[in-house]
Amino acid sequence: MPTLVNRQVLLARRPAGIPQADDFKRVDVPAEEPGPGQVRVRNVYFSVEPAMRGWVSAVANYSEPVPIGGVMRSFTVGWIDRSNHADLPVGTRVTGLFGWQDYAVVDPQAIEHLIPAEGPPMSTYLGVMGINGVTAHYGLLELGRPQAGETVVVSTAAGAVGSCVGQIARMRGCRVIGITGGPDKVRLCRERFGFDVAIDYKAPDFADRVAEACAGGVHVYFDNTAGAISDAVMRHLALHARVVVCGTASVSSWDPPPQGPRLERHLLVKRASMKGFVIFDHPEHQPVARRDLAQWIRDGQLVYQEDVLDGIDQAPDAIAGLYRGENLGKRLIRVADEP
Amino acid sequence: MPTLVNRQVLLARRPAGIPQADDFKRVDVPAEEPGPGQVRVRNVYFSVEPAMRGWVSAVANYSEPVPIGGVMRSFTVGWIDRSNHADLPVGTRVTGLFGWQDYAVVDPQAIEHLIPAEGPPMSTYLGVMGINGVTAHYGLLELGRPQAGETVVVSTAAGAVGSCVGQIARMRGCRVIGITGGPDKVRLCRERFGFDVAIDYKAPDFADRVAEACAGGVHVYFDNTAGAISDAVMRHLALHARVVVCGTASVSSWDPPPQGPRLERHLLVKRASMKGFVIFDHPEHQPVARRDLAQWIRDGQLVYQEDVLDGIDQAPDAIAGLYRGENLGKRLIRVADEP
Repeated sequence: MPTLVNRQVLLARRPAGIPQADDFKRVDVPAEEPGPGQVRVRNVYFSVEPAMRGWVSAVANYSEPVPIGGVMRSFTVGWIDRSNHADLPVGTRVTGLFGWQDYAVVDPQAIEHLIPAEGPPMSTYLGVMGINGVTAHYGLLELGRPQAGETVVVSTAAGAVGSCVGQIARMRGCRVIGITGGPDKVRLCRERFGFDVAIDYKAPDFADRVAEACAGGVHVYFDNTAGAISDAVMRHLALHARVVVCGTASVSSWDPPPQGPRLERHLLVKRASMKGFVIFDHPEHQPVARRDLAQWIRDGQLVYQEDVLDGIDQAPDAIAGLYRGENLGKRLIRVADEP
Repeated sequence: MPTLVNRQVLLARRPAGIPQADDFKRVDVPAEEPGPGQVRVRNVYFSVEPAMRGWVSAVANYSEPVPIGGVMRSFTVGWIDRSNHADLPVGTRVTGLFGWQDYAVVDPQAIEHLIPAEGPPMSTYLGVMGINGVTAHYGLLELGRPQAGETVVVSTAAGAVGSCVGQIARMRGCRVIGITGGPDKVRLCRERFGFDVAIDYKAPDFADRVAEACAGGVHVYFDNTAGAISDAVMRHLALHARVVVCGTASVSSWDPPPQGPRLERHLLVKRASMKGFVIFDHPEHQPVARRDLAQWIRDGQLVYQEDVLDGIDQAPDAIAGLYRGENLGKRLIRVADEP
């Protein structure tokens, strides 16, 4: 029997700033067999997300950095193609941090979620039904606490988290202002996601447009970018505003931290709060969020956009492409056909 | 009968940054008589506090700016020396925003607090028993929520708010690190207020000392300064840290906002929060705080330090002096003998 090849993408070196194609290496190794009690997952989709920059960085972060020479950490969806565990039959569809590789041999506790037979397509478990949707649901509803009639601003508004944040805020009766890059994404925010206002941060009059759209005050700012985008928004906080710090996609390096206008006066005068969160701290929220998200998708209240790259060779450059703003929707890499 | 003179300090012009002596004007006017239902307050002590910079600034703030030519806004303590109100007999000791003047004719609702006959001296109602103590109590206990064994850092640690914050944190079983300016204040923090560590922000190795003292992580940072002092502290937040934004004493102008290292990454990685507050929003907290503060003063658990300037002519330069760091303890101006 010919050896089954496991194609992998390894971290070749510690990136300076945003990880580029050269920071990774494609290798082929033999696929392993699962040990006692273990299963083997055949990955179908890899996830590509801004947080991956943090996962490969040596700077203090919310998880251990991926080691040099290690398989790139990634959420994936796939199915079990070999099983030594009675509760996990072959064909079971699963999600987990199974990495940028065809096959992952794992213990059962490494499985993050069993994908039900009924419901949204498996790819959505890396986006709107996965960590992105759960992040949007938790951050907006638990920390942002938007009330009907309030104004919610979200950055990376056309992305997997941002598009979900804005749509949930609309469902809650809020006025939604999305900030995104380029005319295609502005159109996506307005026409597909139904935001009230979409502003292109690359426009020369960006700050003026934010000032105009936010003249009545920003009650919730769901911040995925930090940087100049946040600077423009923070000037317009409403009294008792809630700033949810979810990501810092616009900052290319935190070592040393970049300079920006100090925020304390805004927080003080507006009695405002800023809070950072990491969704992995809140596993209890996943079933709550997934129940709502599946319902909203079924009802047509929540739509999503995917940006699927074909083949594992697309992986090394995919994070850099995300930071170049290439993707329209949640970026995925398809490495096998769906079962 | 000779006319009773009311000495006043008026705001002569809009200050650029920190209000200086030249920004004020001393005038003498005839003292007014109270109208029907009104009382006249004979001020004894004026308060001098960092927040006064905001009260005279044209930049967006949490109260209307003092008008040019108006009596300088100030908390004062005094007694009622003329009364047309049955419930407020002559001799009643009161606090309120009665301004930098000898006499204020006011409606009863302008009286902030009736000072009880028993209890701490009347001057303390401008400091530890007044807005400063209530601010410390609310900000630390309601927003900072310190737990026994945690590390609490407070800036302007020798001041009226800071010294109270640190002592309450000690009572709660916390390790307290106070940041203050100069050897006299460092000694005051250590010897009189009993803080575990006191650090001079003027020392050349300030950031290193903060790093050393905060190596185990900062659980609560009660921030009265912003600026370089905060920059040194924010690098050492513990997981789930609470940053209470109470004041920005180290920043000389917010127009335009000064630059500093961006904070989002600290908030994200440490799942930390920052929250601004203004004590005037929480009148319901005053009796709660005053009851605790009076008890602690009586028990000797809470000590305070006053810096009393004598005579109304000290008023115009008193705010600038505060920002020069001249005062040791809560700065007051005595303009009459206690009754």
